[in-house]
Amino acid sequence: MPRQTLAQRVADAIARQIAEGALQEGNKLPSLREYMRLHGYAKNTVITAYEHLASQGLVEARHGKGFFVCKNLKARKEDDEPEPYTRALDTIWMMRQQFVRDPGHSHLGEGFPPIEWLMDMRLDKFHRQVVRGGVSTLFRYGTRLGNPDLRQRLVQKLADYQIAVSPRQLVTTLGANHAMDLIIRRYVAPGDTVLVEDPGYYPLFGKLQLQGARMLGIAREADGPDLDTLERQLKKHRPKLFFLQSVGHNPTGSDLSPAKAHQLLQLAEAHDLLLVENDAMADFKPSSAIKLTALDQSERTLYLGSFSKSISAALRVGFIAGSKKRIEELADLKMLLHNSGAEYSERTIDVILAEGHFLRHLSRLQERLRAATQRGLAVLDGLGAEVFCRPEQSLYLWARFPGADDANTLTRQCLSQGVMLAPGSIFAVDRQMPVAWTRLNVAYLDDPAFRRSLMHLGLAG
Amino acid sequence: MPRQTLAQRVADAIARQIAEGALQEGNKLPSLREYMRLHGYAKNTVITAYEHLASQGLVEARHGKGFFVCKNLKARKEDDEPEPYTRALDTIWMMRQQFVRDPGHSHLGEGFPPIEWLMDMRLDKFHRQVVRGGVSTLFRYGTRLGNPDLRQRLVQKLADYQIAVSPRQLVTTLGANHAMDLIIRRYVAPGDTVLVEDPGYYPLFGKLQLQGARMLGIAREADGPDLDTLERQLKKHRPKLFFLQSVGHNPTGSDLSPAKAHQLLQLAEAHDLLLVENDAMADFKPSSAIKLTALDQSERTLYLGSFSKSISAALRVGFIAGSKKRIEELADLKMLLHNSGAEYSERTIDVILAEGHFLRHLSRLQERLRAATQRGLAVLDGLGAEVFCRPEQSLYLWARFPGADDANTLTRQCLSQGVMLAPGSIFAVDRQMPVAWTRLNVAYLDDPAFRRSLMHLGLAG
Repeated sequence: MPRQTLAQRVADAIARQIAEGALQEGNKLPSLREYMRLHGYAKNTVITAYEHLASQGLVEARHGKGFFVCKNLKARKEDDEPEPYTRALDTIWMMRQQFVRDPGHSHLGEGFPPIEWLMDMRLDKFHRQVVRGGVSTLFRYGTRLGNPDLRQRLVQKLADYQIAVSPRQLVTTLGANHAMDLIIRRYVAPGDTVLVEDPGYYPLFGKLQLQGARMLGIAREADGPDLDTLERQLKKHRPKLFFLQSVGHNPTGSDLSPAKAHQLLQLAEAHDLLLVENDAMADFKPSSAIKLTALDQSERTLYLGSFSKSISAALRVGFIAGSKKRIEELADLKMLLHNSGAEYSERTIDVILAEGHFLRHLSRLQERLRAATQRGLAVLDGLGAEVFCRPEQSLYLWARFPGADDANTLTRQCLSQGVMLAPGSIFAVDRQMPVAWTRLNVAYLDDPAFRRSLMHLGLAG
Repeated sequence: MPRQTLAQRVADAIARQIAEGALQEGNKLPSLREYMRLHGYAKNTVITAYEHLASQGLVEARHGKGFFVCKNLKARKEDDEPEPYTRALDTIWMMRQQFVRDPGHSHLGEGFPPIEWLMDMRLDKFHRQVVRGGVSTLFRYGTRLGNPDLRQRLVQKLADYQIAVSPRQLVTTLGANHAMDLIIRRYVAPGDTVLVEDPGYYPLFGKLQLQGARMLGIAREADGPDLDTLERQLKKHRPKLFFLQSVGHNPTGSDLSPAKAHQLLQLAEAHDLLLVENDAMADFKPSSAIKLTALDQSERTLYLGSFSKSISAALRVGFIAGSKKRIEELADLKMLLHNSGAEYSERTIDVILAEGHFLRHLSRLQERLRAATQRGLAVLDGLGAEVFCRPEQSLYLWARFPGADDANTLTRQCLSQGVMLAPGSIFAVDRQMPVAWTRLNVAYLDDPAFRRSLMHLGLAG
């Protein structure tokens, strides 16, 4: 590869931001002066870079106003973009979609918060502190349980949730999905029956299927799982594990009620059931939000945490908290499969959690989420949609539209209008059943393209 | 946690470097002036930090000469140190040992190069360039196949090895162990017979056992696997996979001969066998070193690469190269299990590979390795040891000592003398058989503690 000039590299970086959607059509680029100050480049470098982008038709100069991202850009094709129609609507396709951000599309189906909500925690600011913590460990494998400083920090984070653990009751993972995979491989044998919420977190379903487990769905209601079905299934099938989300449930956005939490733990006790509480949305909720593990104190729970949606998914850091015995077992398995977690990323998370600024970041994130949730509910009311539950703050809302009985059909129709939805069937244990519900990301609900596309389909006035 | 003063943080960082062994007993600390210049701290901060360390008994001031790390430090106990005797000599114990660096011990059994060999690639220097490549993707999941820039860079790296692949024939992984795990989970069903080298890479054995595979060992000879046994086992058991290392074989340090490589591929062709070539040592060998995949061009091979031992294990980045179809299958599985690799780490590796300095780093690394290998061979000759093969440069040598017929016994005896070995039985498919061979890390072979401990045992004159 020929060595690029600095101006070319700057131009490529901006082109990438446009392709990723971080800079959108019509957005103004930073002024030459701002860009120079921000990155310390010479004026000529920035001018050359901007002119290069203009010659590619990506940006245009407007007299006296600066540079702007051109409208009607041809969508850049990622080199691993799937064939959406042939693989439509199965797990792999849905997961692949998460990685394709077509700049022309609305992202209502996305499971991720908007980047702007995360960017006030400038990751690059923390790098020096990470290095200062000891250079030599930046080259080695991490430890079996994970970075000790980070685990100490997590002890305190969990204490804020009223969950008491020691550092030896914590193991770091390469994200929450890795955590689920470790738990499945340690505690689920092929042929075992495992309980999941229905609708529920579909990447979990794929992992269970891969392990050869038999999944039984427990209906998710607005205040938590349906306990009558749960009790029946516990008696009939004697499953050992139940994976669930207490708060900010994906996809319904619902929260477990305290009464159900209590009864659920009583059932778990009576039937020797291990509850895996996936709390990936913890940072999107008040620290007082209910958690099974806070009631149970790790007797029959494993608690999963993640920083993917509140700090960065690019670092791949999550963790499991549980009894010392279970954490030992999971740490050994993690070591056998991966040697260790990503020490560099773990130290970055540790440094970020230590910053006073992090609490401000979370409170700002939650403020934005609260506003978006309320705005989203108003949009849905305006469209005459039925909403499953009305949380105060949740990244997801679960809704159905009068006249649209199969969200798969609705999804296909909206996709042709440039709006990507997440149809309910994706989250169902039985994917063949038509589902009317759709998961909507509150951050994008006020996108006019959505209303336009429903109007086009005759589903909104 | 109360907020620490800067001086305390500096002291903690230095204490950590001492505990990690980056600063060793008797080493001089940087002068106050050097430390101030390096980190931009005020003089008082550094003085306070050094005095704090002195009060803890970690460093001492020598009049007119500066501060030095104290001798006879009590070994710091990691909070997840195993009980070495109760779990002795099984895979988990051996893997756990890798994560415990007792400052008083010799690290002859280690699988890792010394940190000093890696530290000239100062990871922190690359951070700015990583950020410059686009900030918004630092928050998101990476793509299914892995960062496109890195994959493009790997295309060129493999071209230097005479392996031709397109970017779609590459998927990034969270290290080489993750790569093995993906391959096992995609292509090995419980009960399947899988071929491995004997002795071979023991963390691989653990992963195969976890999947319920039946392992058959093919004896590793000084020029590669024993092809007579291989052919017999192929006819008898019709296995689908054979995991092996062409060069710098772990644990023997041996290299595959061109003739055996050719015959091996003919056998694979005749018996429909997929060869998984784990080339974790590629950066420790000339780019002309033989590779099965260079002969076969991904028809019946999957090629595994890693940066853990030549750049950093803390980043967790590896990759698999293969046919487009197999890479698609593995990328889908990776996404299902982990969503994505660590985008941040992948970009760091990409930036490092792009630096001209990286080639100098590799040539220096190989120079050091060559010198250490030759020095190590001389030490072993001096001790009257039998050496399995005499590579020009290899991180490992495989040797046995006259009078010591069971390396497990030798390992226990040496451990009591403060020397940690890696006994041959660890690397054997049948761990119950006594093995006389021991794996020795060439970087530590001239440690006088080793000779002393053999002398103490009456095994060296």
